[in-house]
Amino acid sequence: MSDTSPQQQSTILPGRLEAFSDGVLAIAITLLILEITVPDADDGSLWRQLGDLWPSYLAYAVSFLTIGIMWVNHHRMTRRLISVDHGFIYRNLALLGFVAFLPFPTAVLADYLTEGGSNAKAAAAFYGLTMVAVSASFGLLWLHVRRTPELSAPGASAEVHSDVVGSAIAVAIYAVAMGVSIVSAVAALAVYGAVAVAFAFRRFD
Amino acid sequence: MSDTSPQQQSTILPGRLEAFSDGVLAIAITLLILEITVPDADDGSLWRQLGDLWPSYLAYAVSFLTIGIMWVNHHRMTRRLISVDHGFIYRNLALLGFVAFLPFPTAVLADYLTEGGSNAKAAAAFYGLTMVAVSASFGLLWLHVRRTPELSAPGASAEVHSDVVGSAIAVAIYAVAMGVSIVSAVAALAVYGAVAVAFAFRRFD
Amino acid sequence: MSDTSPQQQSTILPGRLEAFSDGVLAIAITLLILEITVPDADDGSLWRQLGDLWPSYLAYAVSFLTIGIMWVNHHRMTRRLISVDHGFIYRNLALLGFVAFLPFPTAVLADYLTEGGSNAKAAAAFYGLTMVAVSASFGLLWLHVRRTPELSAPGASAEVHSDVVGSAIAVAIYAVAMGVSIVSAVAALAVYGAVAVAFAFRRFD
Amino acid sequence: MSDTSPQQQSTILPGRLEAFSDGVLAIAITLLILEITVPDADDGSLWRQLGDLWPSYLAYAVSFLTIGIMWVNHHRMTRRLISVDHGFIYRNLALLGFVAFLPFPTAVLADYLTEGGSNAKAAAAFYGLTMVAVSASFGLLWLHVRRTPELSAPGASAEVHSDVVGSAIAVAIYAVAMGVSIVSAVAALAVYGAVAVAFAFRRFD
Repeated sequence: MSDTSPQQQSTILPGRLEAFSDGVLAIAITLLILEITVPDADDGSLWRQLGDLWPSYLAYAVSFLTIGIMWVNHHRMTRRLISVDHGFIYRNLALLGFVAFLPFPTAVLADYLTEGGSNAKAAAAFYGLTMVAVSASFGLLWLHVRRTPELSAPGASAEVHSDVVGSAIAVAIYAVAMGVSIVSAVAALAVYGAVAVAFAFRRFD
Repeated sequence: MSDTSPQQQSTILPGRLEAFSDGVLAIAITLLILEITVPDADDGSLWRQLGDLWPSYLAYAVSFLTIGIMWVNHHRMTRRLISVDHGFIYRNLALLGFVAFLPFPTAVLADYLTEGGSNAKAAAAFYGLTMVAVSASFGLLWLHVRRTPELSAPGASAEVHSDVVGSAIAVAIYAVAMGVSIVSAVAALAVYGAVAVAFAFRRFD
Repeated sequence: MSDTSPQQQSTILPGRLEAFSDGVLAIAITLLILEITVPDADDGSLWRQLGDLWPSYLAYAVSFLTIGIMWVNHHRMTRRLISVDHGFIYRNLALLGFVAFLPFPTAVLADYLTEGGSNAKAAAAFYGLTMVAVSASFGLLWLHVRRTPELSAPGASAEVHSDVVGSAIAVAIYAVAMGVSIVSAVAALAVYGAVAVAFAFRRFD
Repeated sequence: MSDTSPQQQSTILPGRLEAFSDGVLAIAITLLILEITVPDADDGSLWRQLGDLWPSYLAYAVSFLTIGIMWVNHHRMTRRLISVDHGFIYRNLALLGFVAFLPFPTAVLADYLTEGGSNAKAAAAFYGLTMVAVSASFGLLWLHVRRTPELSAPGASAEVHSDVVGSAIAVAIYAVAMGVSIVSAVAALAVYGAVAVAFAFRRFD
């Protein structure tokens, strides 16, 4: 085949990569609910047991919002692309792999949050570790876009730079939240939720 | 970045937001079946046990129809959009979060409907509570569209107003159905089904 | 609203209805695998136990092929549509509801096929009953298209008629296969597979 | 019907076949996580038990990368298509059926990898067997494209030939890896991972 230019341009169209990524994100966000199982309630106790599942609802809400923000940010990036290369495809696949992994630490956190003790803290730290991986893979993807100007439309560089910085900040925050989980799992979850809300309210133009 | 106009226009294209929302709705509606588990039947009793699962089939049918109607209504709204803003994206995400939650209360209702007693009533009320949240988030999304005329094509205001009213009616009906569930879980499920059928037959132009 | 003509045309675009239906079919076909669970094998017995799961593999293959054919047939229909109406949307939703239900009878059949006795027969009959419902809802959808000429492009009537007939034949075959299941569950599954293969080889132009 | 020309052209548009295939691949890749279940940890042991799940993470990573590569290769093929015929649709369905099956052998491998003994080897061989089936069905699909020049755009023949060869190589490698699994399950998994990485780094132009 002939197209072996230095840029190593791919034959994958940006639109299809975006559609595939949107699909994975939409599925991961919707699978979150499968991790909440129907409680096995004794006579008359269902209402209370449904209430006792609040860590599941909270973890669901935080992960749902987090993946939703990822979709928004991912879409903002990919709509600027005029082509994708090999490096983009596989960094994007790594990002999707960590996002698609999120239902598992979400379920772990929901199941162990109220148990207290070191298990609750381990669950919160494991969730934070996954979020570090997600943010870092997002940052690596954006670094790649910044390093490869021919991928994006002219004039996108300021925004790309700002997104690289945003990813680095997210990695740092989630690393700190992992530290918080050593003190309190509930406090760590509060940080995860606050980060999601803060990113949701961040002005994106 | 420069586009900090008062409208705070997003860089998300309405078409992609619609495709993402369609994906979440299509997945949520198809995941409903995973909540029905194969019965553990003694020799010769499978046919009867499959019949005993009628609450599961009924809950499946009501939730499937309800999410289907939501897809129709959501599509009717989004096809009128000429742009989406930050407020729309996150109100829409809240709506999707409640719809994607529906497989869980559906499974709770299916499992406890025939148990009778307060557990059945709690299950029916929990389902209604979720439907109140879905309808209210739908109404808030439509209120936002009504308050932000630059989002939708000219001439859509009459329809948007009618949909805000429709959402408010739905909230009221589901709240009443929650009250019905205090008397009878089966009666409450009948109301949920009747609401879905009524909305399905509603003339939309 | 103004568009209250007798045809009661919908504001749903055929392309989006097709995309939503494709999504539900793609999800239902991919969820089939979740119904096969990892065997709990004693030391050294895993290979044999994986072999003992042949009813699961067979049921998976038959249902996968069947939903695949449904996708082909559904696509052949919808690509002829120039508009969809209210009746089409809800008949289509009923069809999707039965197709999305298929993972459940598939799992029931896989679990009880080799148990023999009346449970195996009940499982096979239940699978057939679902297929009757799928075929009948397909036929009703096509009948609606035939009765509503303004929905489809000119020149499609011969094909639509042929598809109504095809659906009626499918209903009849699956009803007969349900009768076969009274004699033998394995024989009934063979009929289900043969029907899928026959429809797959059917020349569609 | 009239269009019974020798090529037996289908009425399925390549774009919709591609969208359906993308959907199945995106769902299969995202369902992989559902096979990892939350460990039932005694007090204080969760962090260690999460670590003990490394075979699950490894199997997840290998299968995720493998399906991702399949998506890339599948997309490279389908974007060259100018029409699809009956033979393409059903060979493609067979390929999707094997890919969508992958979450099951992935879960089997994850559950039995560290058990050692013949069960671990059986799990690794079963995974390899599925990969042989996936590669072989990919090769058969590409052979069909090579044999049917009217399906693809002019000038694609060199690439199609190279992909047929690539599929044959993959079949051979996975067959060898099945042999490796007789010696060591972990070594076989290493081969599966190495193959995925090698294909990911393969230059595609």
